[in-house]
Amino acid sequence: MLEIFKTITLDKNSHTPLYTQLYDSIHEMLSQGVLTQGFRLPSVRELSKLLGINQITVVSAYRLLENNGFAHSKTGSGTYIENLIGNGSQFSGHESISDELYQQEDISIINSRQIEVDENTINFASATPTTDLFPVDDFKTALNEVLERDRGNAFAYQESQGYEPLRYCIFDKIKSQINCGSPETIQVISGSQQGIDIISKALLKQGDCVITESPTYSGAIAVFKSRGADIADVEITENGPNLNILEYLLKKHKPRFIYSIPSFQNPTGYSYSNMHRKEMLALAEKYNTYIIEDDYVSDLDFEGKNLYSIKSLYKNDRVIFIKSFSKIFMPGLRLGFMVVPQSLQENVLEAKHTTDISTSGLIQRAFDLYIRKGFWNKHMSFMFDIYKERYYEITKALDENLPPQINYSKPGGGLNIWLNLPFGFPMNSLLRQTAAEGLVFAPGNIFYGANSPQKLNNIRLSYAAVHTQQINAGIKRFCEIAERMLQNNSS
Amino acid sequence: MLEIFKTITLDKNSHTPLYTQLYDSIHEMLSQGVLTQGFRLPSVRELSKLLGINQITVVSAYRLLENNGFAHSKTGSGTYIENLIGNGSQFSGHESISDELYQQEDISIINSRQIEVDENTINFASATPTTDLFPVDDFKTALNEVLERDRGNAFAYQESQGYEPLRYCIFDKIKSQINCGSPETIQVISGSQQGIDIISKALLKQGDCVITESPTYSGAIAVFKSRGADIADVEITENGPNLNILEYLLKKHKPRFIYSIPSFQNPTGYSYSNMHRKEMLALAEKYNTYIIEDDYVSDLDFEGKNLYSIKSLYKNDRVIFIKSFSKIFMPGLRLGFMVVPQSLQENVLEAKHTTDISTSGLIQRAFDLYIRKGFWNKHMSFMFDIYKERYYEITKALDENLPPQINYSKPGGGLNIWLNLPFGFPMNSLLRQTAAEGLVFAPGNIFYGANSPQKLNNIRLSYAAVHTQQINAGIKRFCEIAERMLQNNSS
Repeated sequence: MLEIFKTITLDKNSHTPLYTQLYDSIHEMLSQGVLTQGFRLPSVRELSKLLGINQITVVSAYRLLENNGFAHSKTGSGTYIENLIGNGSQFSGHESISDELYQQEDISIINSRQIEVDENTINFASATPTTDLFPVDDFKTALNEVLERDRGNAFAYQESQGYEPLRYCIFDKIKSQINCGSPETIQVISGSQQGIDIISKALLKQGDCVITESPTYSGAIAVFKSRGADIADVEITENGPNLNILEYLLKKHKPRFIYSIPSFQNPTGYSYSNMHRKEMLALAEKYNTYIIEDDYVSDLDFEGKNLYSIKSLYKNDRVIFIKSFSKIFMPGLRLGFMVVPQSLQENVLEAKHTTDISTSGLIQRAFDLYIRKGFWNKHMSFMFDIYKERYYEITKALDENLPPQINYSKPGGGLNIWLNLPFGFPMNSLLRQTAAEGLVFAPGNIFYGANSPQKLNNIRLSYAAVHTQQINAGIKRFCEIAERMLQNNSS
Repeated sequence: MLEIFKTITLDKNSHTPLYTQLYDSIHEMLSQGVLTQGFRLPSVRELSKLLGINQITVVSAYRLLENNGFAHSKTGSGTYIENLIGNGSQFSGHESISDELYQQEDISIINSRQIEVDENTINFASATPTTDLFPVDDFKTALNEVLERDRGNAFAYQESQGYEPLRYCIFDKIKSQINCGSPETIQVISGSQQGIDIISKALLKQGDCVITESPTYSGAIAVFKSRGADIADVEITENGPNLNILEYLLKKHKPRFIYSIPSFQNPTGYSYSNMHRKEMLALAEKYNTYIIEDDYVSDLDFEGKNLYSIKSLYKNDRVIFIKSFSKIFMPGLRLGFMVVPQSLQENVLEAKHTTDISTSGLIQRAFDLYIRKGFWNKHMSFMFDIYKERYYEITKALDENLPPQINYSKPGGGLNIWLNLPFGFPMNSLLRQTAAEGLVFAPGNIFYGANSPQKLNNIRLSYAAVHTQQINAGIKRFCEIAERMLQNNSS
């Protein structure tokens, strides 16, 4: 039976790691019915010899098959296929993700278009605050004052770099935390998605490589792919990415940059330790690359982790810092900023001009005044308190109700919690059953790039769009449904 | 002396036409002092034989040298170099464009950053309306009504395709002129620059070809280059592009699309005849490509040309229509729309999402209400009358004052007039002298791509940012300065 494994071809020059390629090949044989339930895979030594690859590659591929419920190992005996396709088991972790609800890879598309959300929905899927939290009256005050003050100038072309008083205002706000030199390093953007797009225009050519975390924000992956970049990814753990793997990828692929979300990462909620931040910057220096530091919710530090921004470290000219206001202020404003190293400023400015000439002048001016009038500080503290209350409510509900087979680690801040379910758990059934009861959340697989091995046993629970009063009932019901499915299977 | 021409190497596979390459090579020899004043160029037959190229290629290159003042031909005798570099003549058409004022290729950067404009400046350089023309109060009314009506929803993520009522509203406005099927074909964009960027993301890969007019809007060229596209261009005449050359380029380069500004083109003010529009669409069909129709001021048709949009023609599914509001409404709003053929809608929507998720919800909603309250029609008619008055004022002043060596053709609408000066006219001196008297305009060369032969003897005069009362004095003074320079040279 070793014969059939000879058909596997691996490409050592590909950006997709060999172990992933091997995993994919075996998974395909399994999907096609070539490998059936109970089949004993070749030993690690046999397969590595047959394919001319390192034993560790085979071990990694087998471990991934196990993690995703496609195999199990018996000590001293070997690794056996779990091919449950079509055999009626609820635990076929590879059932196709066919629900229309979840076909879109990007969670923000899901938020706005795909999930039918009515007032009775308990929405753990959206990481975006609900509209009742927006400071409409204060912003309206700022808007009207700006219109009186600036009249038509509010609607003229603005400097591509951003409205100057706003850049100064942002600089004053962040200079104590982020070592950004001068207001000239600030580039205003129409939301952080645009920031990622602009940086990619300034830095990426077709065939360049980018390193991302895995899982990560799918909107970033879409941009890198649109520029024709190849993506290599490094698994994120509770303290940050595995630095050995990161260094290996840096050495091998010479990426243009590393895209990272170091604080309360999306989707996992994990934060890099301060050691990981320092080490990553040292690696960027050593391998002559950049770091895009995407800061979307570092403000929401409920337990005083006091993590410092990578951009705040010594020798930070390899870090492009992107700040989003979508989660802590109002997403539809389409406003954010970047801190850009001097060496990239000209390219970034040109890319911004090419992209949309400038961000809306009215919005920039109103936001500037909004900050100067003290509304921003007031609102930040309001949002912090609300999110914090929800964070403690959801972690309490999870601790009380989560079946022992499901676990998570407390992020201590941010907006997301990453649940680990048993390998092979029938995620789609769970999604359907909870959705039928008006309970929605984001399945973990949508946060994996197409090239990376998707782990199918995670769920992202967000508490940005659920009211504190809904949380306990929602989590309780979620846990009941999950527990019933776990029991049905084991019985 | 034929020897030195052997050093010329031409690349037949390049997107740059051979005659342009030859022109560039000779121009370089001239800049380096290899060819000096009075040097007799090889005969057309000699050079074509030496380089193994068609005689017509040599004729075209020589003609371009003449057009730009670098050579003159004597009938029956040959073509002679005019190398005036460094010999003190004011008529060295190739003096380097070094003024800081004009280093930026893009006129909108010039508008906002480079030209020092104070209240005494007469600004013929900007094609953007001045802020005193903006309907601030009506827009403020719409903004406040929307904030009362929609509250926080105005600041939530919007559909990437655009706020639905606005798409319906736009559809109703344009359906009588543009055959666009349904509101589903409308894609809201954050200004037409973003439209060009999004289409390019949806259609262009590195190495693809795009055909543009020459000269054209430099902001579009910047986008195509950023996608790694090659650009071939076709000279625009008063009735549209030369269709034979266009067909030749289509056959040779198989472009992904043609970027065109058919009505009151930027920078020339020329409009395609209706025949040219039909023919171009037929060519797009024949050569299986798309047309991007950039409509930035077709509304300003002062003399009743009644040109129809290419998108309004039968079989229009090869046309992507982009509408800007920057020139007729307010540029800093960053709002426009596209009409997208069904076959491209999915790709375009994905590219929009990747670019900035959505256009500002508040701005979209306020603009929707602004149209519905009738403010839009009122403002269009106001702007039309103002621009029309300025158009007649500037053409009258030009007709009365322009030296006979300078000519132009009346565009009949739009915002720009394209002056043809004598070949070799010292444009930079003119720019400096007029700027010293507070009179600014856009030199023609900034509208040519780096690959295309730049004609150096044009000026774009715009009347969007000059008040009617300033026009006569400004044009008169401009003509006096130009005339004095012409006389100084001929004396």
